[in-house]
Amino acid sequence: MPIYKAPVQDTLFVLQDVLRTQDYGNLPGFGEATPDLIKAILTEGAKFAEEVLQPLNLSGDNRGCKRDPNGRVTTPEGFQQAYEQFVAAGWGSLSVEQVFGGQGLPHFLSNALQEYLISANMAFMMYPGLTLGAIAAICAVGAEEQKARYVPKMAAGVWTGTMNLTEPHCGTDLGLIKTRAAVQADGTYRLTGTKIFISAGEHDLSKNIIHLVLAKMTDSPDNIKGISLFIVPKFLVTPDGALGERNLVSCGSIEEKMGIHGNATCVMNYDGATGYLLGEKDKGLRAMFVMMNAARLGVALQGLSQSEVAYQNAATYARERRQGRALRGPQCPQDSADPILVHPDVRRMLMTARAFNEGARGLALWGALQVDLANVASTPAARQDAEDLIGLLTPVFKAYFTDQGFANAVNAQQCLGGHGYIREWGMEQFVRDARIAMIYEGTNGIQALDLVGRKLAANGGRALRLFTGQVSTLVQHTLTEPSVAEFAAAVEHGLGDLQAATQWLIRNALMKPENAGAASTPYLYLLALVSMGYMWLQMARAAAVGLTEHPDEHAFYAAKLDTARYFFCHLMPETSLHKIRVEVGAEPLMALPAEAF
Amino acid sequence: MPIYKAPVQDTLFVLQDVLRTQDYGNLPGFGEATPDLIKAILTEGAKFAEEVLQPLNLSGDNRGCKRDPNGRVTTPEGFQQAYEQFVAAGWGSLSVEQVFGGQGLPHFLSNALQEYLISANMAFMMYPGLTLGAIAAICAVGAEEQKARYVPKMAAGVWTGTMNLTEPHCGTDLGLIKTRAAVQADGTYRLTGTKIFISAGEHDLSKNIIHLVLAKMTDSPDNIKGISLFIVPKFLVTPDGALGERNLVSCGSIEEKMGIHGNATCVMNYDGATGYLLGEKDKGLRAMFVMMNAARLGVALQGLSQSEVAYQNAATYARERRQGRALRGPQCPQDSADPILVHPDVRRMLMTARAFNEGARGLALWGALQVDLANVASTPAARQDAEDLIGLLTPVFKAYFTDQGFANAVNAQQCLGGHGYIREWGMEQFVRDARIAMIYEGTNGIQALDLVGRKLAANGGRALRLFTGQVSTLVQHTLTEPSVAEFAAAVEHGLGDLQAATQWLIRNALMKPENAGAASTPYLYLLALVSMGYMWLQMARAAAVGLTEHPDEHAFYAAKLDTARYFFCHLMPETSLHKIRVEVGAEPLMALPAEAF
Repeated sequence: MPIYKAPVQDTLFVLQDVLRTQDYGNLPGFGEATPDLIKAILTEGAKFAEEVLQPLNLSGDNRGCKRDPNGRVTTPEGFQQAYEQFVAAGWGSLSVEQVFGGQGLPHFLSNALQEYLISANMAFMMYPGLTLGAIAAICAVGAEEQKARYVPKMAAGVWTGTMNLTEPHCGTDLGLIKTRAAVQADGTYRLTGTKIFISAGEHDLSKNIIHLVLAKMTDSPDNIKGISLFIVPKFLVTPDGALGERNLVSCGSIEEKMGIHGNATCVMNYDGATGYLLGEKDKGLRAMFVMMNAARLGVALQGLSQSEVAYQNAATYARERRQGRALRGPQCPQDSADPILVHPDVRRMLMTARAFNEGARGLALWGALQVDLANVASTPAARQDAEDLIGLLTPVFKAYFTDQGFANAVNAQQCLGGHGYIREWGMEQFVRDARIAMIYEGTNGIQALDLVGRKLAANGGRALRLFTGQVSTLVQHTLTEPSVAEFAAAVEHGLGDLQAATQWLIRNALMKPENAGAASTPYLYLLALVSMGYMWLQMARAAAVGLTEHPDEHAFYAAKLDTARYFFCHLMPETSLHKIRVEVGAEPLMALPAEAF
Repeated sequence: MPIYKAPVQDTLFVLQDVLRTQDYGNLPGFGEATPDLIKAILTEGAKFAEEVLQPLNLSGDNRGCKRDPNGRVTTPEGFQQAYEQFVAAGWGSLSVEQVFGGQGLPHFLSNALQEYLISANMAFMMYPGLTLGAIAAICAVGAEEQKARYVPKMAAGVWTGTMNLTEPHCGTDLGLIKTRAAVQADGTYRLTGTKIFISAGEHDLSKNIIHLVLAKMTDSPDNIKGISLFIVPKFLVTPDGALGERNLVSCGSIEEKMGIHGNATCVMNYDGATGYLLGEKDKGLRAMFVMMNAARLGVALQGLSQSEVAYQNAATYARERRQGRALRGPQCPQDSADPILVHPDVRRMLMTARAFNEGARGLALWGALQVDLANVASTPAARQDAEDLIGLLTPVFKAYFTDQGFANAVNAQQCLGGHGYIREWGMEQFVRDARIAMIYEGTNGIQALDLVGRKLAANGGRALRLFTGQVSTLVQHTLTEPSVAEFAAAVEHGLGDLQAATQWLIRNALMKPENAGAASTPYLYLLALVSMGYMWLQMARAAAVGLTEHPDEHAFYAAKLDTARYFFCHLMPETSLHKIRVEVGAEPLMALPAEAF
C-alpha cells in the first residue's frame, strides 16, 4: 500500500524562512494567520490528508464512479464519509471571504493545505477544488443576489460546483460551442446542448450541484464574441434558499478514462434546463477566465502533489529494497545486498523529483502570496505588481509543474522496477492520475501560447520586466555571498538565456507570429527554470541562515543546500537547450507539407 | 478506433537506399532476400499487422487475460484465431535457421516485420517474441538432442517459450534467487520456487510452453556464481516428441498491471517440476544473457513501434480536428476552424516523434544487420566488428528507444487533448503499454550501467573506438557535400561532446566508479543522440541522392530532408546538456544522507 506524509516542515520553511509571510501581519487576513495558527492548521490538515483521504486513493481508483440507468452517480466507497468530514472541518473554505461563511485566511495557507490533500487523493479533491473555482467566478461577476444565494452553501461544501465548457467538437476553440440559451418571459434562460469531460458533473457528495455553463444566446453572434455564462443548478433554488424542483440537466454517461477514476467525468445533457445569466451577456469567456485562472493554479498544484507522493513512495522503496552492491563497495556487508538508494542512477531519479518538489512548492506558495497581495496589498502599485507576476507565471506553473510532475511520477515508478508497473503498489496510479493535469484547464501547449501570445506582450512587457528585475536584483545581492554565490552565478546564466530568447522573440515574432508559436514551449520552460532558480536561490540563502541560527535543525537545512546544489548542477543548465530551440524559429517545424504527416 | 498503417516505404528506404542490403548478396541467407522477396514479405506482413492484429489491440486491452481457479489462462477473444494465422503464415520463424524449420532469412528482414506487428499489437507479439528469445538460448548453449527436441516445434509456433528470472525479492540482482533444483537419479532435476512477472507464462495459444528457468542447484554456491538454467516444459515431452504428462509448474495468479493486458503476466509456481539442465552447471546467467540480448533488441523495437502507431494516430487527428486558426491567418477560411496541424506546437510534438521514429527505425535495421554480419560476414574481423557494434549499442537502443517511445506516446496523446485521456480513442493504451518497455529486460538504468560499466571498457574500449571512427569518417566525407554539410557539422559537434564525455569518464571514473554510475544515463543519451545523428546523416544523404534520381518520389525524399533538418535543429543539440551532466560527477547525487530521503 502506498504511503504519504505531508511535508509540513518544508511548507513552514517556505512560508516563514523564505517568504517571511509573518512580516505581512498588517494586511487584512494576514494578521489572523499567525505562525501558531498556520502550524496548527497545517498539522491538522496533514493528519486529515494522511489518515482519511490517502487510504481511499487506491481503493477509489479500483472502484471508480458508477452511474445507474437513471443517471445517478455513486462515488467510490468511503468518499461520502470523507467528504462529510472534510466539510465539517471547514477544509474547503479556508480562504473564502468571511462574509460568505468562509474563514477569510490567506490563499498561501489554503494553497499549502491543498497540496497535502491533493497528494493524498487527487480524484477526491477535484470535487471541492472545482467548487472553489465556481465560487471565484460567481464572486467576480455575479449579482449580489446570486452571491448571497449560492456562495455560502458552496463555501460550506453543502453544494458543489462545476465548469461546463467543452463540447464534443470543441475544447480549446470555444467559439465553436453549440449549446444554446433561449431567454424566457421571466428573464431566465432555457439551455439546450451537450457538454463533455465535465469533472464532478454528477455525484452523491453534495445536496446540489451548481453548474456554470458556457452557451450562446439565440440572438448572439455564432462565434467567440457571442458566449455567455450561466448558472444552472441541478436543483432549482427557491427564493428562501431551499431546494426546489429537479432541473433538466442530467448525466448521460461517465467517461472511461486513463485515471482519476474516483472523480466522475461526465457527459452532461442540457435539455431545456433553467439557467441564470452570470455576469454580462456575451461576456461569458471573461468570467470563465476568472475561474480558469484559479483552476490553473489548482492544476499546477496537482502536478506538484503527485510528484511529491510518488517521490515519497519511491524514496521509501529505495531505502528498503535490497538489490546489488554499491559501486564504492558493500555498504551493508552483513546483509545479502545493499538498499538500491546506494546507486547513483536511482538517486538521479529521486533527486530530480526532490529538487522539483521543493522548488515548485516554493513557487506555488510564492504564487499564492501574490494572489493575496493582488487583493490586499497596501498600495495600488503593490497590488498591480502582484497581479502582473501571478498573471505572467500562471501558465508557466500550470504547464511546467504538470509536465514535470508527470515525469517525476514516471521516474518514481521506475525506481520500483516491475513492482512499479503492478497496480497494488499504487505507483502506476500516480502516473495515470498525474497525466490529466497536462491536458485539462487548457493543454500545456495552450499555456505556452497564452504566455508568449498574451502574457509577455501585455502592457508593453511590464510583467516580465518586473519579474526579471526582481531576479536580477537578487542575483546581484547574492553573487558576493559565499554560501550561495555559485547558485547565484547559475541563475545569472539562466537569466541571460531568458533575456536572449526574449530579445529573439521581440525581433522575430512580431512580424511572424509562427515564430512565437514555435518558441512557445521552449520559452515557457526557460522562464520556468529561471523561476525555479530564483526560488532555489532564495531557499538556499534561507537555508544558509538557518544552518547558522538553528544548529539543532542542521540536517534539515543541510539537506536543503544539498538539494539546491543538485538543482543548479543538473536541472538549471537546461536553459541553454531551450534558448537554442527558441532561436531555431518556425521554419523547421512548418516545412513539412500537411499531407506528408 | 485507432488506426495503423505499416511504413513499408520507409523500411525499404532504409534497407535499400541507406544500408544497401542488396550489396551483401554473396553472404549466406542474404542471397535469398532479394529486393522482390523483401518487398513481398513486408507487404504481406503489413497486411497481417493492419488487418488481423491491430483490430484486436484495443479489445485485447479491454478484456485482458483471465485465469480460472485451476490455473488455466485464457487470452482475449480473437487472439487464438490470430495466433493460428500467425503460425500458418510462418511470421514467427523468418530468421530461424532452416535446419530447425525456419526460413533462414536475415535478421534485418524479420526485424523490419516485427516493428509492424508490435505496432499493431504489442501484447499479442510478446507471445511469439519471447519464444524467439528462448530459441536463441537453446540454440546457443543447448545439447544437440535438446535443440532437436524443442526448437522445431517452437520455431513453428506450435510451442511457445518463456524466460523465468525474477522472484518476489529479486529482479536485477539475480544472485539472490531462491528457486532450487535438486538432481534426480535419472539426471533430471526437481525445481521448487516461485517466479513472478513471467510474461506469457500461461495461456491458451500453444500446445506446450517451454519455460527457461534460472535456479540454484542444491550443491551450488548461494550467490551469483551458483545459478544454472533449466528447461521446464509445461508438458513433458516423450522421446518421440509427443506431449507426455503435465509437469508440476502452474500459474498461481495473473498480475493486475498498468498495461499490456492482452499478455498474461504470471506468477509461476514450481512445485518439484521436472527440469533439464540447459548449458553448463552454474553458468546459467551466461546462457540467459544470450536470450536477454536478443530480448533487449526486441524491447527496443517495442519503444519504436508504440511511438510509430501513436504518432500515426495523433497525426491523423491533427489533420482532421478543426480548432482555432493558424497564426499566419486562416488556412481554411471556408470552414469554421483550421485543422490543428497548423499550430507550430502541435507540429513540435509530431515532428519530435517522427524524427525519432525514422531515425530509430534506421538504427534498429542497422543493428539487425550487425546481428546478421556478426553471424555470417565473410571475415573474422568483419564478424568481430559487427559483434562489437551491436554489443555496444544494444543497451543504448533498449533504453533510448523505450524512453523516447514512451515520451512520444505521451506527446501523441497530448495532441488529442481530452480525447487522448479517454479509453475509446486508444491513445492512453499506447502510453500504458509503452511504459513497461522501460522496465523489463533490465530497467533503463541497468542498461546505462551495462553501457558504462561493461560495454565501454570491454577490450580496451575497442567497440566505442570502432563506432566513433565510423561516425567520424562519415562526417569527414559529408562536411563538404552541400546537401548535407549542415547536418554533418551538427554530428561533428555531437561527436565532440561524446568524446569529451568519454575522456572525462576515463579520467574520473576508473578510480571512482560512482562517477561512472552518476554519468551512466546522460552518457547513454549522448551516445544515443550521436547514433541517431549518424543514422540521420546517412538517411539525409540517401534522400538527397533520391531527390535527384527519382523525381517521381520527390515528396517522399523531400520529407526525409525536412525531418532530418528538424532532428538536427531540435533534438541533436541535447548532447551538450548530457555532456554537462556527465561532467558534474557523483558528488551532488550522493551528498544527501540516506535518512534525508
